[in-house]
Amino acid sequence: MFPRLLAVTLLLCACVPADAQHRNLRDHGIATGVLQPGQWNAITDVPGVEVGQKTLVRGDSVRTGVTVVLPHAGNLFRHKVPAAVYVGNGFGKLAGSTQVQELGNIETPIVLTNTLGVPVAADALIDHAFSFPENADVQSVNPVVGETNDSYLNDIRGRHVTRADVLEAIRSAAGGKVHQGNVGAGTGTMAFGFKGGIGTASRKLPATLGGHTVGVLVQTNFGGVLSVDGVPIGKTLGKHYLSDELNDSPDGSCMIVVATDAPLDARNLERLAKRAMLGLARTGGIASNGSGDYVIAFSANPGVRIAHDSDSPLRQVAVLRNDAMSPLFMAAIEATEEAILNSLFHADTMTGRDGHEAAALPLDEVLGIMERHGYPVVR
Amino acid sequence: MFPRLLAVTLLLCACVPADAQHRNLRDHGIATGVLQPGQWNAITDVPGVEVGQKTLVRGDSVRTGVTVVLPHAGNLFRHKVPAAVYVGNGFGKLAGSTQVQELGNIETPIVLTNTLGVPVAADALIDHAFSFPENADVQSVNPVVGETNDSYLNDIRGRHVTRADVLEAIRSAAGGKVHQGNVGAGTGTMAFGFKGGIGTASRKLPATLGGHTVGVLVQTNFGGVLSVDGVPIGKTLGKHYLSDELNDSPDGSCMIVVATDAPLDARNLERLAKRAMLGLARTGGIASNGSGDYVIAFSANPGVRIAHDSDSPLRQVAVLRNDAMSPLFMAAIEATEEAILNSLFHADTMTGRDGHEAAALPLDEVLGIMERHGYPVVR
Amino acid sequence: MFPRLLAVTLLLCACVPADAQHRNLRDHGIATGVLQPGQWNAITDVPGVEVGQKTLVRGDSVRTGVTVVLPHAGNLFRHKVPAAVYVGNGFGKLAGSTQVQELGNIETPIVLTNTLGVPVAADALIDHAFSFPENADVQSVNPVVGETNDSYLNDIRGRHVTRADVLEAIRSAAGGKVHQGNVGAGTGTMAFGFKGGIGTASRKLPATLGGHTVGVLVQTNFGGVLSVDGVPIGKTLGKHYLSDELNDSPDGSCMIVVATDAPLDARNLERLAKRAMLGLARTGGIASNGSGDYVIAFSANPGVRIAHDSDSPLRQVAVLRNDAMSPLFMAAIEATEEAILNSLFHADTMTGRDGHEAAALPLDEVLGIMERHGYPVVR
Amino acid sequence: MFPRLLAVTLLLCACVPADAQHRNLRDHGIATGVLQPGQWNAITDVPGVEVGQKTLVRGDSVRTGVTVVLPHAGNLFRHKVPAAVYVGNGFGKLAGSTQVQELGNIETPIVLTNTLGVPVAADALIDHAFSFPENADVQSVNPVVGETNDSYLNDIRGRHVTRADVLEAIRSAAGGKVHQGNVGAGTGTMAFGFKGGIGTASRKLPATLGGHTVGVLVQTNFGGVLSVDGVPIGKTLGKHYLSDELNDSPDGSCMIVVATDAPLDARNLERLAKRAMLGLARTGGIASNGSGDYVIAFSANPGVRIAHDSDSPLRQVAVLRNDAMSPLFMAAIEATEEAILNSLFHADTMTGRDGHEAAALPLDEVLGIMERHGYPVVR
Repeated sequence: MFPRLLAVTLLLCACVPADAQHRNLRDHGIATGVLQPGQWNAITDVPGVEVGQKTLVRGDSVRTGVTVVLPHAGNLFRHKVPAAVYVGNGFGKLAGSTQVQELGNIETPIVLTNTLGVPVAADALIDHAFSFPENADVQSVNPVVGETNDSYLNDIRGRHVTRADVLEAIRSAAGGKVHQGNVGAGTGTMAFGFKGGIGTASRKLPATLGGHTVGVLVQTNFGGVLSVDGVPIGKTLGKHYLSDELNDSPDGSCMIVVATDAPLDARNLERLAKRAMLGLARTGGIASNGSGDYVIAFSANPGVRIAHDSDSPLRQVAVLRNDAMSPLFMAAIEATEEAILNSLFHADTMTGRDGHEAAALPLDEVLGIMERHGYPVVR
Repeated sequence: MFPRLLAVTLLLCACVPADAQHRNLRDHGIATGVLQPGQWNAITDVPGVEVGQKTLVRGDSVRTGVTVVLPHAGNLFRHKVPAAVYVGNGFGKLAGSTQVQELGNIETPIVLTNTLGVPVAADALIDHAFSFPENADVQSVNPVVGETNDSYLNDIRGRHVTRADVLEAIRSAAGGKVHQGNVGAGTGTMAFGFKGGIGTASRKLPATLGGHTVGVLVQTNFGGVLSVDGVPIGKTLGKHYLSDELNDSPDGSCMIVVATDAPLDARNLERLAKRAMLGLARTGGIASNGSGDYVIAFSANPGVRIAHDSDSPLRQVAVLRNDAMSPLFMAAIEATEEAILNSLFHADTMTGRDGHEAAALPLDEVLGIMERHGYPVVR
Repeated sequence: MFPRLLAVTLLLCACVPADAQHRNLRDHGIATGVLQPGQWNAITDVPGVEVGQKTLVRGDSVRTGVTVVLPHAGNLFRHKVPAAVYVGNGFGKLAGSTQVQELGNIETPIVLTNTLGVPVAADALIDHAFSFPENADVQSVNPVVGETNDSYLNDIRGRHVTRADVLEAIRSAAGGKVHQGNVGAGTGTMAFGFKGGIGTASRKLPATLGGHTVGVLVQTNFGGVLSVDGVPIGKTLGKHYLSDELNDSPDGSCMIVVATDAPLDARNLERLAKRAMLGLARTGGIASNGSGDYVIAFSANPGVRIAHDSDSPLRQVAVLRNDAMSPLFMAAIEATEEAILNSLFHADTMTGRDGHEAAALPLDEVLGIMERHGYPVVR
Repeated sequence: MFPRLLAVTLLLCACVPADAQHRNLRDHGIATGVLQPGQWNAITDVPGVEVGQKTLVRGDSVRTGVTVVLPHAGNLFRHKVPAAVYVGNGFGKLAGSTQVQELGNIETPIVLTNTLGVPVAADALIDHAFSFPENADVQSVNPVVGETNDSYLNDIRGRHVTRADVLEAIRSAAGGKVHQGNVGAGTGTMAFGFKGGIGTASRKLPATLGGHTVGVLVQTNFGGVLSVDGVPIGKTLGKHYLSDELNDSPDGSCMIVVATDAPLDARNLERLAKRAMLGLARTGGIASNGSGDYVIAFSANPGVRIAHDSDSPLRQVAVLRNDAMSPLFMAAIEATEEAILNSLFHADTMTGRDGHEAAALPLDEVLGIMERHGYPVVR
């Protein structure tokens, strides 16, 4: 069944954005926070974590896609990862949250897509779990699927995302550089009245603080009053929630995935997840009534993986103590802030459904404002 | 698209159980609790609430189905009901819980089905919302779908439930008598080592206590040590969790839907939902590690409905005070206990996947034990 | 300061109830559940756990006291225990819950007392922490104090519990047999319309299931419809919530402390705590609107203790897997049910404030009803 | 009893800070956010809300106090206010949270003090409730007391706050201008490595958005990387969490009280409370492991008050709809940010226990940095 579906979908892609002309916020000389990013400044800086994306841009009105985060490349059902979910604001359709909270683990890839694509993506994750021969006895799978609503640009009611799209995104997952902006689940999203999308960033703690990495990937589709490293961009441009120019809704959503190689248990992962919302706040997000703001956090540390089956009733683990958490909290806040900003810096102007246009962040103007606020920016 | 799918599925039903030979626990002279049931002793005693079911019994191994509860028969998206979710034990795949909790309302029918049928059922609820012409502008829907795992009798990996099945169950919804036992989402489920299924019961408070009704519908698929109105059936039969005879898992799940016509806000509905687990406890349930025990509670009182759109930012409501809740709590506990027991009393022995057999509760033996414990039972 | 206070309070005790004529439910031949209790059928069956009590019966209207549970006899601040709190119904004044939930540990003895005694008991726990010379640098302590409202019998507004009483209860803590009934924090409490009090029970799992012990101690002060091992005592006596005879409130509260030597982390302790409410349900409790029903669970297993200070940021632990939890869940349910019943079986009729009388459970009548329900009781 | 205690404590005050030389952030020309403050730019802009404080500065090492917020000036027990608590990070000793969450209301003044003063403050709130003649029948009170740990400057182990101090603070409560900085519960606190204290701010929505006011009062005692309206003060000064200069803990806490005259139910108050943490994030707070960051939100709208007794089981209310919440969310975020910054701008350098010194925010340096970031500041 998969090959045939694959054949169909192969016709639909070939639309990975060039992304060449875009740079991360940091590459413009704007280094938010006080901690340093990892090699890729991406969630993939956490060893073993992979990202895959499928972008759907078709005709006038299909502007959507799928982004997946794999905590590791193996059989996640057999080798689960400790995980937690924090609900920043629950106007959203996240699948799988209650089991993650109860059992403290995730057993599938994490999929992001559009609001009405959640069911089909969940179905695809069941397909994916069943595709492992060693899962032939599996009768229950807890798909984890997050979403934001891309209906301003995308014909969301057409439910264009297919199981094959999701499976293709999973198969394409890899480490290293992550495409950002109008890609995958961020293809049709908007943030702060501008074109949003997928963004990522990371922080690597100094060795004296444990040397752990925290990586974040976001799907930005929310409103508020944009700040870039604290500089009041939205206010200066007069384009923000409750401004004259942008008097529409701040609603939308932000999905945030936080990965770390620190050996954390589910309780401390929930605490880590909670901090990501503080990073969102630093960009000017307000978690409006209509936002589905969710944070999914997991530890990719192989030492804390949870075998599905075990000969022993005991699990031997070395987990971080509570009092070692604060540097990780700061890392999660900083990486979330930067990932959100990166999503904006990478997004292109896009036209979609009913001729709606979402303008990219006006880079020159923004950098000009940054300069006037004392930032020696790189153009 | 619906008509075609419908044509296919019409061939598959015609399997609503006769249910003629079964009686409610109460009809055997066993009146659990101290409050009285409503007319139907069913969730449909709550005015406006409707139940629809689709039973799938095909060949040797399809033993599953769909049960839907409609808080009212109209357009739920436009006229939402106050609601809450309580997670008894979260090893389950309930869709929609975080939005219900955040916004305090439900905007779709409540669907119960099997574990792997959740995605397709959620998709069907989107279809259903879209099927109302006045919902033509709707871009976001929060499907509420619960499940238990019927894989002992059912080929769950075959994912036999279709969108058409769900829509048919919704269309078939009606008030009045509710079929119980091996029907709908309870077709293939087991409880306490016996055949479980769908059960329902209600309580109507005396006028001096407000006269409100609480109705409960359950999908039973869990384990423990069965008690019938306190009589140790499981222990006497030597058939219970950790007994020699039944050394398999107590896992499974119980989905519980609690309806009331009391005008409650979401906070007090959450409290009401929480009490349903106390009713489950009275039957001997233990909420085992592998259980997905969820309670969904809503108020069907027309006075507290929530319009999707409103000219006013204010909502005028008359809601019950905290100190009027205790009788409703007791009603929810009693109705849940009785609904679970009814599900067992109505279920027939069933053979399914791989020749597995789930034996019905041995009625004569059970009634005999009841008699030896002083109950003047009716046979 | 302590010696002087001690001198004062020594005059006030000498009131430990004889408790000689009372027997546990089990000693009457009524063995609830299917698991076996430990040696003492008490929370002290969990190795290292100690209980101390101070009973205040003075004049016509002082009927209150203090019960403390020590997870271990050492310096709890330096050697914390993994812990969790579950709120069954939060109409109560439990001190310390948010820190226990956030950090997953308890760092003081657990104190139970009356509602208005919580502040002074919390203050006493600070005194207690400061009394260890090695705590000379401690500037923050999280006292854990639960309560129920004994105002029917006790002059609660007089706030008769003193810091010295609490410290004395702590000093008196010991393993082995635990006094039950009208003692300590249960001196003035009522349950199901009868005299309630302190109760305890335990379960020891068979070696094949890990051999762990779960011990429970309760302070019963709540209402509902009393069942004794499922037998409808309240209903038969016509004395229950909403009956003609007992038309007063079902309110009150139940504090439940669950101890285990199973090596559990805070997440699974929270799940264990949640099950205690299922045990309460089996006795007929309904968690009424006015109840403060809280469960505090901790692991006394030395291997999972949490050092206050550590040279390493890591904590090496062997904790039970999720799928080993179900037998412990059942143990917690059974021990809670039996502990509540024991509290009633041990309580004596008491007269207190304003001449109010709380009648003891009428043992002969109850045993007679049990016999008519097929129980070969021991008198 | 009160008069005597009062006599003692009257000797200890006379230490309300002059506060004359300090100005709000806004008075320096730095108008954070996009919404406008109310008349006083204080929590007292919410009609009916009053603030009282008692400052304890004695000898070398007593640097503590009490700040109370009254939702209204009447008998709060008889006329409760809808309320909610949100736990940002639960390393704290907040009294009363579970009952507020369960019942959705607050029935006492809200008291802030130091960590070890919580018990005595709770006891004082019981005194206060009992002091109303019409509360002569009250047997249960739920004191709400928050705290932060001022032990760097204050001899916290001495537990210098008395019941009389708390009662005096309550009696002194008034509307209008609120003293900020080193006053009341903020007397000995620190934030971002500088002297913190009490701060307040408000936002009044335009009439087109309902015209409601949100007022916030904070007790700041936490760390992170200070930003003033987005300008990286901590980073520029090289004084922040994980910097070389300030390598101590970011721990501490922030208590946040959010008041509004919008008619909100407890569910939407919890959502509002949650947003305050986003305001904290905008100042650079990270909610470190050791923080007790709590938000208490209430509605002071007389129309939603909850009578303790009622002839009717129903409560008639007009509450804001979910979709009217976003402007209030933004108001809470902005007011919290500004209240935190005000606390720093008003605090003076203070020397305390063991000669510890907490330096005030270096105003000239800070304003200079603001100017270099493009702000036309007022000195």
